[in-house]
Amino acid sequence: MSTLTIIKIGGNIIDSPSRLDAFLASFSAIQGAKMLVHGGGKVATQIGERLGISPNYVDGRRITDSETLELVTMVYGGLVNKQLVARLQSLGCNAMGLTGCDGRVLSANKRPVTGRDYGFVGDLDAGSVNVSLLQTLMDAGLTPVVAPLTYDRKSGLLNTNADTIAQEIAKAFSSNAAVQLIYCFERKGLLLDAGDDASVISTIDATRFNELVSSGVVSGGMIPKLENAFTAISQGVQKVIIGQAEDLPGLISGTAGTQIQ
Amino acid sequence: MSTLTIIKIGGNIIDSPSRLDAFLASFSAIQGAKMLVHGGGKVATQIGERLGISPNYVDGRRITDSETLELVTMVYGGLVNKQLVARLQSLGCNAMGLTGCDGRVLSANKRPVTGRDYGFVGDLDAGSVNVSLLQTLMDAGLTPVVAPLTYDRKSGLLNTNADTIAQEIAKAFSSNAAVQLIYCFERKGLLLDAGDDASVISTIDATRFNELVSSGVVSGGMIPKLENAFTAISQGVQKVIIGQAEDLPGLISGTAGTQIQ
Repeated sequence: MSTLTIIKIGGNIIDSPSRLDAFLASFSAIQGAKMLVHGGGKVATQIGERLGISPNYVDGRRITDSETLELVTMVYGGLVNKQLVARLQSLGCNAMGLTGCDGRVLSANKRPVTGRDYGFVGDLDAGSVNVSLLQTLMDAGLTPVVAPLTYDRKSGLLNTNADTIAQEIAKAFSSNAAVQLIYCFERKGLLLDAGDDASVISTIDATRFNELVSSGVVSGGMIPKLENAFTAISQGVQKVIIGQAEDLPGLISGTAGTQIQ
Repeated sequence: MSTLTIIKIGGNIIDSPSRLDAFLASFSAIQGAKMLVHGGGKVATQIGERLGISPNYVDGRRITDSETLELVTMVYGGLVNKQLVARLQSLGCNAMGLTGCDGRVLSANKRPVTGRDYGFVGDLDAGSVNVSLLQTLMDAGLTPVVAPLTYDRKSGLLNTNADTIAQEIAKAFSSNAAVQLIYCFERKGLLLDAGDDASVISTIDATRFNELVSSGVVSGGMIPKLENAFTAISQGVQKVIIGQAEDLPGLISGTAGTQIQ
């Protein structure tokens, strides 16, 4: 069975040029088929402010109105995606940037309005990932670099969570390949003590995770991130790892980060 | 020999949603392998103004400084490119958006500074077009939609004239395929009387073109556009046509526009 490494990076590394460079060098060095899924970063907010587009929040949740959709299409699909691709090319990695509409690579459903209207936000389903096209691209020696934008199956794009995109792609490939899915975020891994980077839990299973949620050790944004990871494992993804982008070689070799079991 | 249709559209149609829709519907209906190369449009200038990026001109020529390069990467590579791709998908055309760095599909040299510094502007050469990758994509049923941005063979993008990109792609494919190259612009074709759309010259060869330049009938921006077209014909492109995007069916059937001989 072939192997496939899927790595998701977020704003914390995208916003830091020197850390990003180090990560991209490690990413380029990964042998075998690989894919990069990226989120946004502060640059969208900064450019939005300069354009006079103020973030629109309802009950603490950001709403993607049509102006914001244009903003993220420009910034995530254009600026961030192409800067990653050009940098990877300079490192000898034959990257190709994609949004969901390119080759209908990622389709989604606009989130239904049930009380709250999130705007142009896409939810993925079982038929979302165009495995065949992604495989054709990788067989041609290309490394897909996927922006967090999906195709609405009509004539537009939808803003979509990059963690979920990475998870759905990993699941969709898990019957064809031994997939390892690596979520990079701001911490060294799942920490027993949020203030101590040395307290990384090296492996965790669902039972222990539920205990840590009950006891309050794991809270906030970590809960959906870990839930995503357990879903991936339960649906056939061979390996899921959470950690820091700059530790990528260690995350792959098993000496850094938290591995989900 | 297989056929390939390459169409270049510019700002005048991109800025007009209803005309653009009509053009894209005709484009989607073209049988066989096809490619769309697009320029910019007013939206880059408008967004630039909102961002406080003022166009930088030296001796009447626009300079691509680093801010402008970021702007065109966002607007041409992100917003315009993805809106075209999503719209084509809705019409059943399996489009894939590309800038030069995606799969190194279009490489260029930063224009050397000889007296005047144009900034981040790319000039194409004989090795610029990645024919093999574009062919792989078209063999997979995809329609490349190419933004006017080339890869600098290091780690960045370069702003590049879309007419020249279309010409170089056409030339690069001319030994593999019967290529027809269609330049869409604001006029019905090359006009004998600039004020009269009915005065379209239906066919023109190099001798007649030189006469019309000498007599002042053809002037300004039309001269480099026609020179590009004659270069393409002399280098093996089977058919070059100039006309209006909304006349696309007629341009293809030979009942509209100006054909270069």
